[in-house]
Amino acid sequence: MKSLGKHLIVELYDCNRDLIARVDKVEQILVDAVKLSKATIVAPVFHQFNPHGVSGVVVIAESHFSIHTWPEYGYCALDIFTCGELIDSDAALHFMKEAFQAKSMSVMELKRGTLDIPEGELRHKP
Amino acid sequence: MKSLGKHLIVELYDCNRDLIARVDKVEQILVDAVKLSKATIVAPVFHQFNPHGVSGVVVIAESHFSIHTWPEYGYCALDIFTCGELIDSDAALHFMKEAFQAKSMSVMELKRGTLDIPEGELRHKP
Repeated sequence: MKSLGKHLIVELYDCNRDLIARVDKVEQILVDAVKLSKATIVAPVFHQFNPHGVSGVVVIAESHFSIHTWPEYGYCALDIFTCGELIDSDAALHFMKEAFQAKSMSVMELKRGTLDIPEGELRHKP
Repeated sequence: MKSLGKHLIVELYDCNRDLIARVDKVEQILVDAVKLSKATIVAPVFHQFNPHGVSGVVVIAESHFSIHTWPEYGYCALDIFTCGELIDSDAALHFMKEAFQAKSMSVMELKRGTLDIPEGELRHKP
């Protein structure tokens, strides 16, 4: 069975709390990670919570990266959803783990859009 | 164990292909679904692919809704990531299944940010 998308569901624990509290830092790291993956940025949207914490999504031509941070727990929920064979989501993931200084991480990889179609017919966006 | 977020990972199959091809329709349905869930919209970002297909994310104060559509297969990848006890993600999900005229659906519910902390101390954004 072939699938249209690859979705990494990532839990980053014991991150640098000051760093994940600030929208400017989190946005820069996510955008750098997207570029490293060779994905094409469509639009980034980031939001600073009061008193701290960040939500952000980078819509890419090949799906999206998203992050939600809880600085009070040192925790980030990260999603890397890509399609096509050309995107290096692993490189982006390792970069972010280092950048956020996560002491531990769990990753689940899901196939999205698993369809019963002949392999030659599978088309990816864009 | 308590968790910070609830993440519904939804596969919508055999949707109305014309409808999921058009960004205006998809955005309206997603925004209506967010409102129905009682979440607070921070910013929507939607992108029309050429010749067809849509990617979109609505960042909410309680995390995000995202969608990626493949009209050529009648398929939508939908994610509903919320935090707090006040958001009715099930209502949003059922509304979208009907609106996109999906003939079948699979849903996986994940807990995100499962932390070993006393229940009384758990805080949700915003």
